[in-house]
Amino acid sequence: MVDTALPTALNLPMVDPLPAPTQTYFDVCQDKLGMVPNVLRAYAFDIDKLDAFTAMYNNLMLAPSGLSKLDREMIAVVVSSINKCFYCLVAHGAAVRALSGDPQLGETLVMNYRVADLDARQRAMLDFAAQMTTASATIEDPHRAALRDAGFTDHDIWDIANVAGFFNMTNRVASATAMRPNDDYHAQAR
Amino acid sequence: MVDTALPTALNLPMVDPLPAPTQTYFDVCQDKLGMVPNVLRAYAFDIDKLDAFTAMYNNLMLAPSGLSKLDREMIAVVVSSINKCFYCLVAHGAAVRALSGDPQLGETLVMNYRVADLDARQRAMLDFAAQMTTASATIEDPHRAALRDAGFTDHDIWDIANVAGFFNMTNRVASATAMRPNDDYHAQAR
Amino acid sequence: MVDTALPTALNLPMVDPLPAPTQTYFDVCQDKLGMVPNVLRAYAFDIDKLDAFTAMYNNLMLAPSGLSKLDREMIAVVVSSINKCFYCLVAHGAAVRALSGDPQLGETLVMNYRVADLDARQRAMLDFAAQMTTASATIEDPHRAALRDAGFTDHDIWDIANVAGFFNMTNRVASATAMRPNDDYHAQAR
Amino acid sequence: MVDTALPTALNLPMVDPLPAPTQTYFDVCQDKLGMVPNVLRAYAFDIDKLDAFTAMYNNLMLAPSGLSKLDREMIAVVVSSINKCFYCLVAHGAAVRALSGDPQLGETLVMNYRVADLDARQRAMLDFAAQMTTASATIEDPHRAALRDAGFTDHDIWDIANVAGFFNMTNRVASATAMRPNDDYHAQAR
Amino acid sequence: MVDTALPTALNLPMVDPLPAPTQTYFDVCQDKLGMVPNVLRAYAFDIDKLDAFTAMYNNLMLAPSGLSKLDREMIAVVVSSINKCFYCLVAHGAAVRALSGDPQLGETLVMNYRVADLDARQRAMLDFAAQMTTASATIEDPHRAALRDAGFTDHDIWDIANVAGFFNMTNRVASATAMRPNDDYHAQAR
Amino acid sequence: MVDTALPTALNLPMVDPLPAPTQTYFDVCQDKLGMVPNVLRAYAFDIDKLDAFTAMYNNLMLAPSGLSKLDREMIAVVVSSINKCFYCLVAHGAAVRALSGDPQLGETLVMNYRVADLDARQRAMLDFAAQMTTASATIEDPHRAALRDAGFTDHDIWDIANVAGFFNMTNRVASATAMRPNDDYHAQAR
Repeated sequence: MVDTALPTALNLPMVDPLPAPTQTYFDVCQDKLGMVPNVLRAYAFDIDKLDAFTAMYNNLMLAPSGLSKLDREMIAVVVSSINKCFYCLVAHGAAVRALSGDPQLGETLVMNYRVADLDARQRAMLDFAAQMTTASATIEDPHRAALRDAGFTDHDIWDIANVAGFFNMTNRVASATAMRPNDDYHAQAR
Repeated sequence: MVDTALPTALNLPMVDPLPAPTQTYFDVCQDKLGMVPNVLRAYAFDIDKLDAFTAMYNNLMLAPSGLSKLDREMIAVVVSSINKCFYCLVAHGAAVRALSGDPQLGETLVMNYRVADLDARQRAMLDFAAQMTTASATIEDPHRAALRDAGFTDHDIWDIANVAGFFNMTNRVASATAMRPNDDYHAQAR
Repeated sequence: MVDTALPTALNLPMVDPLPAPTQTYFDVCQDKLGMVPNVLRAYAFDIDKLDAFTAMYNNLMLAPSGLSKLDREMIAVVVSSINKCFYCLVAHGAAVRALSGDPQLGETLVMNYRVADLDARQRAMLDFAAQMTTASATIEDPHRAALRDAGFTDHDIWDIANVAGFFNMTNRVASATAMRPNDDYHAQAR
Repeated sequence: MVDTALPTALNLPMVDPLPAPTQTYFDVCQDKLGMVPNVLRAYAFDIDKLDAFTAMYNNLMLAPSGLSKLDREMIAVVVSSINKCFYCLVAHGAAVRALSGDPQLGETLVMNYRVADLDARQRAMLDFAAQMTTASATIEDPHRAALRDAGFTDHDIWDIANVAGFFNMTNRVASATAMRPNDDYHAQAR
Repeated sequence: MVDTALPTALNLPMVDPLPAPTQTYFDVCQDKLGMVPNVLRAYAFDIDKLDAFTAMYNNLMLAPSGLSKLDREMIAVVVSSINKCFYCLVAHGAAVRALSGDPQLGETLVMNYRVADLDARQRAMLDFAAQMTTASATIEDPHRAALRDAGFTDHDIWDIANVAGFFNMTNRVASATAMRPNDDYHAQAR
Repeated sequence: MVDTALPTALNLPMVDPLPAPTQTYFDVCQDKLGMVPNVLRAYAFDIDKLDAFTAMYNNLMLAPSGLSKLDREMIAVVVSSINKCFYCLVAHGAAVRALSGDPQLGETLVMNYRVADLDARQRAMLDFAAQMTTASATIEDPHRAALRDAGFTDHDIWDIANVAGFFNMTNRVASATAMRPNDDYHAQAR
């Protein structure tokens, strides 16, 4: 029987003790977020894997970009909704609620982004992310042109593609390992 | 009109000159592979993004694991076949041909892994990767148990999940940006 | 331009004044629920249609049955999740949260019922409702037998089939008419 | 073993004796249609459920509407064809043959409505009903606008949505319970 | 505008006059079937193509086989139902009605073969034909073993595969060219 | 256990000795192609079936047509890619490589024809073949008009439809019988 304290269905406990920089990073998370997100605890059985994951995650979601942090979280939720990834919908749904100050927007993107009240730029961005998720092989020049017409630069398009791609990875890792979201997310920013 | 020397349909030229460590890395690629894979050239418009990508890629595909390098390349090809990603099928199809010494195996995985001559362990691994690609939300305990029954440890399952997840990311990034594989792959290991 | 006070995208205002029994019914709703659900306001342009809808709804969701009210609301959410019906996910997600006293259960069923913590009876019921929603033509005797094995009577199976069928109707009516859920649902039972 | 005289695979015999108003209704059916449709016999194990069903059915299919009775039966058949509901295709295919006086039209709608000889108004109506059946969450303002362009009022759109929704319910109830159509339908209006 | 006397939407009139053997063949059709099937008239713009088609058709459907003629027509209808081919459903639905002496069987196979009253051998045969139609790449040894378990020889399996394959061809040719079935089929064997 | 010398998973050995005309035909194949394609060996358990197959095949792929031989082989590969038919992808992928003198074109069509460097006429042809393969029942006049706009005659459309239809047959027969391609194809025209 799997220990329910583990963040996934796999028996891969965290390195113990954690190396000092990792412990510091987790302390910062606890401090700022009130928790260490379970995805980090899940990768912490192997510090190289954890570091690779956090480096990519932080670059994609936090580095300067033509996409706002909310834009990126919206992509996360729309991709995760299509893939029905419980972990990512809980965690990034909360982020959309918090960053937008609009709890209903977070809910709507979880449920069906087509009925959300979006401007044309956001809609074009989310349509592209959705197509990448369901039928990436059908993307051709006109689809990229639609993003440029909506005001996105080629750098922005790279960022949309990489954020949407990233959640197509983590959605699948989370579902494949039965990753459990921290309980704290559920009540956040309602 | 997009410059055909660029590795994708996006106008994102490489940093010029490349920082010394990047240039060294590219020189090593040129030396050992006879080319700098276009995926690296594509990310090289932003060295932080390139470094995050290569750190994750190298950990997943090259770090010690219960999965052989060929196992990991086989997963790459099966995922890319379902997603119909031209770039990844070309590059990782060549890798399967080279690592296995069996060109027909590379072709078969590109076309339909179900008809390949696989042992039960490989088949279980590829079935899991395929399910992660097409219907990750349906994965439950019995699917993980099937991997354990085929001889995989929980660490191995993590690695299968992360390699399969990774190519679900890169397939989509490659298709979304029209990434072009280097011509050299086509003739390799035939 | 559609009046945003209307509950759908169709210009079909309520009968004005409402007949006395309808007004009384709406007053009871306001009293007990704190609102008149928009689905009732939507049908109230034609009192015969409203009465037919409420008679069927109340029989299905409230009449004595081997299914608890929570069971029936769980079916509603799972069907609505597959159909991505915003209205029904909002309204019946709130009902699952309230009836179960478990807000996370409501969220989980909205996102992916396969990862919810369900007993075997509930799981069998929701698997049947899901199959009815995605591939009803494939249902045969073994699927009904699985429900009987899980402890359901034939009367219960009828009720499962009719509740699941009903939300396959209302999901589609709501999406086809862009029915908007009352704002009040979002904060309920969090 | 299930009694083959029952109208479904569920052991739910009709209330016996039927209440007088129900018996009268069934007598009228027998008189006018030459049979009591099995769907009514199926619901007659619980007269409240039967009454709710017939009230909704009769309102949708027979009440005054901008849609003709044939329009409504055509929607029934197209929805049922997508859902592959044997009961509804038999019963409503017969109705289309009878109401249109064109047996081939009934057959064509059962098989593939896209090849039927339809005017633009009928085609728009059936395209909307088909989209509601296969992908209701993708319906947005332009789809409703297409119906208005084809000459439908908002009241008509409501009726299209509700008839299409209704058969998405009954198709699933019929398939889930293995409801058998009366033999008499097969030879009608050939 | 296309001449409605042509059997398809393509302007490819029959060779005129027909070569003597073709005319004789068509005369025999007229005599025995009461019509020249439109599929033959469609191919008759090129006698070599017509001859190749009729040779393959007659071998598959009429040559000695472990499959009865009815078996083969049942496969034709089930494949055509999945592909929603109007021409083939009309023509081969009539053939099933005639050969089986059971009009309802023909109707049922057009609508949903899973609810037809079939013996285990027929059901295994039709399940295999259906899988070939929807997901041929997933067929593996266990699927062929299921046919052997149901009593089919390897020669029979070849015949099942080739009949099912053939209608996957003709369904698509008929739909791609808007081939019209002769009116006579509709009333046959009701 | 199946004899691996047989060209399929079915135990259907070739007629022995072959009739003289068949032996001559196979000798010509050996001479010109360096092998007897396994599909011919597979059908050779019944010479009538073999003759019907070769007559249709040779007419479709080799007879005079507005489609070049390369056009027809490109259709073969695109259809086979969608159906994931190993046999046909190997054999006809080799043919595209040889006829085009462009090995990468053959690979690209196997993997994802949408990224191949095609002119508008070829693209229209392959889009039609792809639609025939995935959703033939949705083909209507505008799709045929698109081919005419791309420069195809009605005779050409017939040929496109029949070549695409044919490979939808043979793909399924090959997968259903586990037909093995000759090893020689793999190294051809690389």
